[in-house]
Amino acid sequence: MIDVQNQPDERGIKIHQTGVTRVHLPFLISDAGNVQQVAAQIRFTVALAANLRGTHMSRLTEILTEWTQRPLTISDVEKILLDALDKLSTDFAAITIAFKFFVKKFSPVSLKPSLSAVDCEFSGELSRGSRMKFTLGLNVPFTSLCPCSKEISDCGAHNQRSICRAKLTFANNDFDNVSIEKFVRLIEAQGSAEIFPLLKREDEKFVTEAAYHNAKFVEDILRDVVIALRGVENLSSFAVECENFESIHNHNAFAAHEE
Amino acid sequence: MIDVQNQPDERGIKIHQTGVTRVHLPFLISDAGNVQQVAAQIRFTVALAANLRGTHMSRLTEILTEWTQRPLTISDVEKILLDALDKLSTDFAAITIAFKFFVKKFSPVSLKPSLSAVDCEFSGELSRGSRMKFTLGLNVPFTSLCPCSKEISDCGAHNQRSICRAKLTFANNDFDNVSIEKFVRLIEAQGSAEIFPLLKREDEKFVTEAAYHNAKFVEDILRDVVIALRGVENLSSFAVECENFESIHNHNAFAAHEE
Amino acid sequence: MIDVQNQPDERGIKIHQTGVTRVHLPFLISDAGNVQQVAAQIRFTVALAANLRGTHMSRLTEILTEWTQRPLTISDVEKILLDALDKLSTDFAAITIAFKFFVKKFSPVSLKPSLSAVDCEFSGELSRGSRMKFTLGLNVPFTSLCPCSKEISDCGAHNQRSICRAKLTFANNDFDNVSIEKFVRLIEAQGSAEIFPLLKREDEKFVTEAAYHNAKFVEDILRDVVIALRGVENLSSFAVECENFESIHNHNAFAAHEE
Amino acid sequence: MIDVQNQPDERGIKIHQTGVTRVHLPFLISDAGNVQQVAAQIRFTVALAANLRGTHMSRLTEILTEWTQRPLTISDVEKILLDALDKLSTDFAAITIAFKFFVKKFSPVSLKPSLSAVDCEFSGELSRGSRMKFTLGLNVPFTSLCPCSKEISDCGAHNQRSICRAKLTFANNDFDNVSIEKFVRLIEAQGSAEIFPLLKREDEKFVTEAAYHNAKFVEDILRDVVIALRGVENLSSFAVECENFESIHNHNAFAAHEE
Repeated sequence: MIDVQNQPDERGIKIHQTGVTRVHLPFLISDAGNVQQVAAQIRFTVALAANLRGTHMSRLTEILTEWTQRPLTISDVEKILLDALDKLSTDFAAITIAFKFFVKKFSPVSLKPSLSAVDCEFSGELSRGSRMKFTLGLNVPFTSLCPCSKEISDCGAHNQRSICRAKLTFANNDFDNVSIEKFVRLIEAQGSAEIFPLLKREDEKFVTEAAYHNAKFVEDILRDVVIALRGVENLSSFAVECENFESIHNHNAFAAHEE
Repeated sequence: MIDVQNQPDERGIKIHQTGVTRVHLPFLISDAGNVQQVAAQIRFTVALAANLRGTHMSRLTEILTEWTQRPLTISDVEKILLDALDKLSTDFAAITIAFKFFVKKFSPVSLKPSLSAVDCEFSGELSRGSRMKFTLGLNVPFTSLCPCSKEISDCGAHNQRSICRAKLTFANNDFDNVSIEKFVRLIEAQGSAEIFPLLKREDEKFVTEAAYHNAKFVEDILRDVVIALRGVENLSSFAVECENFESIHNHNAFAAHEE
Repeated sequence: MIDVQNQPDERGIKIHQTGVTRVHLPFLISDAGNVQQVAAQIRFTVALAANLRGTHMSRLTEILTEWTQRPLTISDVEKILLDALDKLSTDFAAITIAFKFFVKKFSPVSLKPSLSAVDCEFSGELSRGSRMKFTLGLNVPFTSLCPCSKEISDCGAHNQRSICRAKLTFANNDFDNVSIEKFVRLIEAQGSAEIFPLLKREDEKFVTEAAYHNAKFVEDILRDVVIALRGVENLSSFAVECENFESIHNHNAFAAHEE
Repeated sequence: MIDVQNQPDERGIKIHQTGVTRVHLPFLISDAGNVQQVAAQIRFTVALAANLRGTHMSRLTEILTEWTQRPLTISDVEKILLDALDKLSTDFAAITIAFKFFVKKFSPVSLKPSLSAVDCEFSGELSRGSRMKFTLGLNVPFTSLCPCSKEISDCGAHNQRSICRAKLTFANNDFDNVSIEKFVRLIEAQGSAEIFPLLKREDEKFVTEAAYHNAKFVEDILRDVVIALRGVENLSSFAVECENFESIHNHNAFAAHEE
């Protein structure tokens, strides 16, 4: 059977990334010993040499299918990419694995346990001969309460759900101390108040008052997240976006920063 | 050229609806004399007789394309459906036209004008020999402030953006007094406070305090919308959903009712 | 602390459904002995008596949180609803649990194993004194190849990914023989050809030729799904939609039927 | 009334972008003389000096609201940004305006007219003292037919809807020859065949056969788009992604390149 993908190509264009996207597979994500089965959505690509017509996409799906069988840590992402370099005979591979991860939370007063879903992303890029460049993506929700509204109003203050989208790139390939849960807690602490799936009345009073006493603009939250991330040892760079789903508008307030 | 769609079918199943969906076309929506060009997303279907294999979908797209040339009122929806009964030789046709419509708003104190986008839907169903059954769909945003949080907290109260999704079906085919804008104003008045695209500081103070003095659960808002809609003369039925994007949770509070 | 939700209400409107929506929790879905941890998205509601102002939403989240600890079969959905009737002191409860479930597939010639994600929904409604009304929702993908295009063209035929969205309601509460996987296989067999996450070249040849030899309109597929479902013993009703993501248009072909 | 936004900030962090996002407004987009009212979705941000606590977001909405009154060309985007530099007293402003634009198409044989929706994005960035950096984003649909499937199969070949997402950045600020429609035609010509909203049978035959005679991998299409864009005079850079909604898989094939 002819291998059409393997035909020579004369256009002389090396393609940076070609592969599969919107692949859904059950992965076992291992975060600091906490293993969860997730419904991952995956993009998996490789570079294609200028002289080849197409890549062998089924090999990418085969590699991914194998990895549904065992827990996946951040370090393992490099193994997936090495596998791709090898089986696809290429010098560059990249993967993005997006999934919901559940973090345990206790309501602040009644201490009732519940589980909070966080949208996470493991992104790795590997060039032959180098180490993986890894980026952890996290979407962390919390509440924000507007300092301007509080100051100018005789009573109350508008507040709303907010989200911080962070992309964290690590300086070396030591991921022993990297944990989704740790970063979620670091980031959610920068909002006006943490939010919870389960709140009894005494907890609702606590969260309402905590937010009121900690009024923050979207810019305040962004800056406090930046300061918090600067304190993390092995980050080489980060990009942060905060978005407030304003309760007084039908649009959102937004701030973004990277360094 | 063979007309495969026209082949006889022996499975004996009359299909309730077959046609095209996710068609995007620029329609000129006319609402009480206010004409706006919208990017409509359309589903357009007809019944298919048990003895026919397929419908002629291109005729549906042709009918829709013709209607991009002139303003479309609610009454015109029946003309589109009559056209389908005729050109597709069928006894039933249905259409749903979804679009954003912009309603003018003035901020409450500074009276600055702005435009608020409302997600709307014109839905019509027509059986041969009957009149069209028309349903107007509207997604109306506003703010809600929690009475429980206000009552139990020493200061502040959690509040958030909310949406009311209403489906309004009319008793007869007199649409002269039906207006998107009128229903938007009727529904948004039932929240804790209206929201606006543009608010100066004096307006923000007004909205914050108005919401605080008008605390409502999602159930309160739903009931008040129900009462408001009961007062509309030519409604034959309605279905209403309210959803609060809770600022203290990462999930929503929800209430639904129909009558 | 005042229980504001428990205040009397004088508007006289019994609310059909009030509760929480877009709750995300890790559920252990058990399908015919196959247990998978899923990231469920849940709507959970109860009826609210006319004389009560609000429901106790945190109790709904508490019930859901408890159910993250043990496998959930279809029969268990009734237990969740009974729990809601009891803890919320109401006469009606409803739940919808949406999740991705993975079904094992073997490529048709090389027999390579892979996993296919199916969007599923468990929906239950329970009135006090009755048995649960349960509906299984499934979105099943396959390929469709156009008979008209094949017939009129000298070579080739347009084909595309299609999806069948089925809602299956069961006649009694015996769910022993109900399985996601079984219904997925029943429905996907009605397309022009099955699709697979992983195909080697010999498999791709097989799927391409299978689809070409089994050209079907969206109406053909819908009718064949209807016939297949009529053959299922304990279904009391079903609603089916088929949608083809047409390769020759930027819109979709659609057909729907219920009985 | 206190201006809380104007309070000094001592954290010493200059914020790259702060402003509003998911604003919906009716804009009049003018493309090479073709003016269409669109439902734009807008992100509008400015830099915030290290010594200021917050930006004045309502001024951004005010600027946008003014621009709903007159046609907007690409060159006008720079005027919006200059307005922001001025009214927000900042040295950097950025805007992204996303909208559907309709391009007229004639079916290839019967020459029936119809309108095809293209997702477009105007993105501008302006630093004080410089000229605007403008990027045009376009999502262009077409059909792709797999060369491998065609070669190895006795009959037929799998094909599917595909999309090319292009981001085009221009070398100077002469936009006289830049037209959405022109770029759509350039890009859609690189697929296996163009697609149309409206096709009669003779047109369907034409498109089916055209695609079959022009089999292309996602990598082939990407390379041909790259070559086509290299031929455009005033482009300073571009990024291109192609995605095939594979008819034989439930995931997509993907290729990306920039230069």
